[in-house]
Amino acid sequence: MASSDEKMSRLLKLAQKFNSFYLTGFGRDEIRPFVVEGQQVGLIKPEVYKQLLRYPEVFCIRDSERCKQGIVELNPAFRDYTERSEKVDKILRELKSEGIFSALYGWRNEYYDVKSGHNSLLKMDRSATCLFGVRKYGIDINGYVKHPTWGLCLWLQQRSDTKETWPGKWDNMVGGGLSVGYGIKETAIKEAAEEASIPENLIKNLTSAGCVSFFFENEQGLFPNTEFVFDLELPIDFEPKNADGEVQKFELLPAGECLERAFGPEFKTTSCPVVIDFLIRHGFITPENEINFTQIVELLHVPLQTLYTYKSTKSLANNCENGHIKNLSS
Amino acid sequence: MASSDEKMSRLLKLAQKFNSFYLTGFGRDEIRPFVVEGQQVGLIKPEVYKQLLRYPEVFCIRDSERCKQGIVELNPAFRDYTERSEKVDKILRELKSEGIFSALYGWRNEYYDVKSGHNSLLKMDRSATCLFGVRKYGIDINGYVKHPTWGLCLWLQQRSDTKETWPGKWDNMVGGGLSVGYGIKETAIKEAAEEASIPENLIKNLTSAGCVSFFFENEQGLFPNTEFVFDLELPIDFEPKNADGEVQKFELLPAGECLERAFGPEFKTTSCPVVIDFLIRHGFITPENEINFTQIVELLHVPLQTLYTYKSTKSLANNCENGHIKNLSS
Repeated sequence: MASSDEKMSRLLKLAQKFNSFYLTGFGRDEIRPFVVEGQQVGLIKPEVYKQLLRYPEVFCIRDSERCKQGIVELNPAFRDYTERSEKVDKILRELKSEGIFSALYGWRNEYYDVKSGHNSLLKMDRSATCLFGVRKYGIDINGYVKHPTWGLCLWLQQRSDTKETWPGKWDNMVGGGLSVGYGIKETAIKEAAEEASIPENLIKNLTSAGCVSFFFENEQGLFPNTEFVFDLELPIDFEPKNADGEVQKFELLPAGECLERAFGPEFKTTSCPVVIDFLIRHGFITPENEINFTQIVELLHVPLQTLYTYKSTKSLANNCENGHIKNLSS
Repeated sequence: MASSDEKMSRLLKLAQKFNSFYLTGFGRDEIRPFVVEGQQVGLIKPEVYKQLLRYPEVFCIRDSERCKQGIVELNPAFRDYTERSEKVDKILRELKSEGIFSALYGWRNEYYDVKSGHNSLLKMDRSATCLFGVRKYGIDINGYVKHPTWGLCLWLQQRSDTKETWPGKWDNMVGGGLSVGYGIKETAIKEAAEEASIPENLIKNLTSAGCVSFFFENEQGLFPNTEFVFDLELPIDFEPKNADGEVQKFELLPAGECLERAFGPEFKTTSCPVVIDFLIRHGFITPENEINFTQIVELLHVPLQTLYTYKSTKSLANNCENGHIKNLSS
């Protein structure tokens, strides 16, 4: 994005890394919209739809007038949430037992609601959402301290070595996915208690502070993630303690060291946007000390809403351009 | 963006309003990249390039292999910043005297630097940038008070009735465009003194808090704006006073009333993103009380960087193979 004569900062490189799919994925592959009940809820890569072709009674892989690469549609004959969820679950368990997709090695036995807008269409195991490019929502809490000598500091957690995803990596103080039946702030409060034993008298200061959106890809699949961000100022003498076995360690770091850690290989890539957003909102990363400031802020909030706009005839004609705003230079 | 069965909130409507061009402009018109020294620096609408056709010695309006609607290129024979600025200035003054473009009625006698990345290519009068769809950068200061009875409050200014743009409208406490020769924080401090008489002992608390990007269009032209946002907490007994005649009034409003005012017709549309961003960062607008929270946050940070990516042949020299330019247009 930066013109070639500009210094490419480490922060911009990192922002490009956690947006690997947003920035380069669409051009590279034949990505197909995944459509349920006439609404696009995901994006599917060739290696996935080639497997889904084996289940024509569940997944209709077909051409579409409005989308040149074609679409993958969940059989519209399925009557409701329950039937759709059961049919998909059965296939996912087959694929899991065949060991084709590494994403399914981390089967979670925890369901994730696939929605169009606020309307739940089906649920699937959390481990499978990246195969379907389903938008994922989570919460993150920035636990921070205004330290008299170190200045602005952040609590980080080191994930347990037994976690299914990103084991042993450094992460935000508290984070978790939204699960069926829990609200956003409710999830944040629940996770704060489980992951960091934040007591009631401190959690009452929890403040909603926005959200970050990015689109990461790795060998397991696609991660179009939106994280709802909360800030929590903590007293200098408070120390988080894990209560659920998912964290091996907490550490309090001054802002600069925290950023250095996020640049390194030991940090969970998909948690970096939350740290960077925090350091920008709190005046540590500024337009004066970061040459690519505006690009980075844009890359913390990429327009995922524009990538899930395919609607089938039934609902409403809408041109599919893989959701991208037309690029004038192509 | 919201699916049709969702409640379209007032906030989402407002976010769509200040992104009128981002959301619908590209499909509607034959918009051409404006190219200077091989780099795209703007976007030009048909009614503008039809006038520029009269000046072929300055503006080359031509087809391009890589852009089906064609481009508008500043004559590449111009040697430097000075020559480019002079040639463009002469034409703008002619167009101004002919009264064709309402944007030029507000001629400012204040230059704006047209840049590619951090490289200044020419300057033009501030009033003309919207005709060329040149990215504009400005600063805004949210002056806020934690009021013991009203809670979070914001100072707003009412613009003077004699201002060239948005006369008499309500606006953020302090705002201003970046001008040639001034830094970002430097501009914020200068404007804080001129517009609101913020004294040194208070301005030292000025905190960088990010930026907002949006793409508005009105009858005057195109506004691809990025505003660098600063927060400034003020003591309850401080009252801003204007020093440069550009403000007719200041008013302190509780967060909710401030938002109500932003919804109304008396608020400067292009200042609304800054207010909304502030109220989101400070936990007043949350995912619990705003159904379209994630869409709105994305619409406060639209990826303007992706709309200015055209590069002409000269700068694509590295893509030459055997003397032929690779066709990049597919």
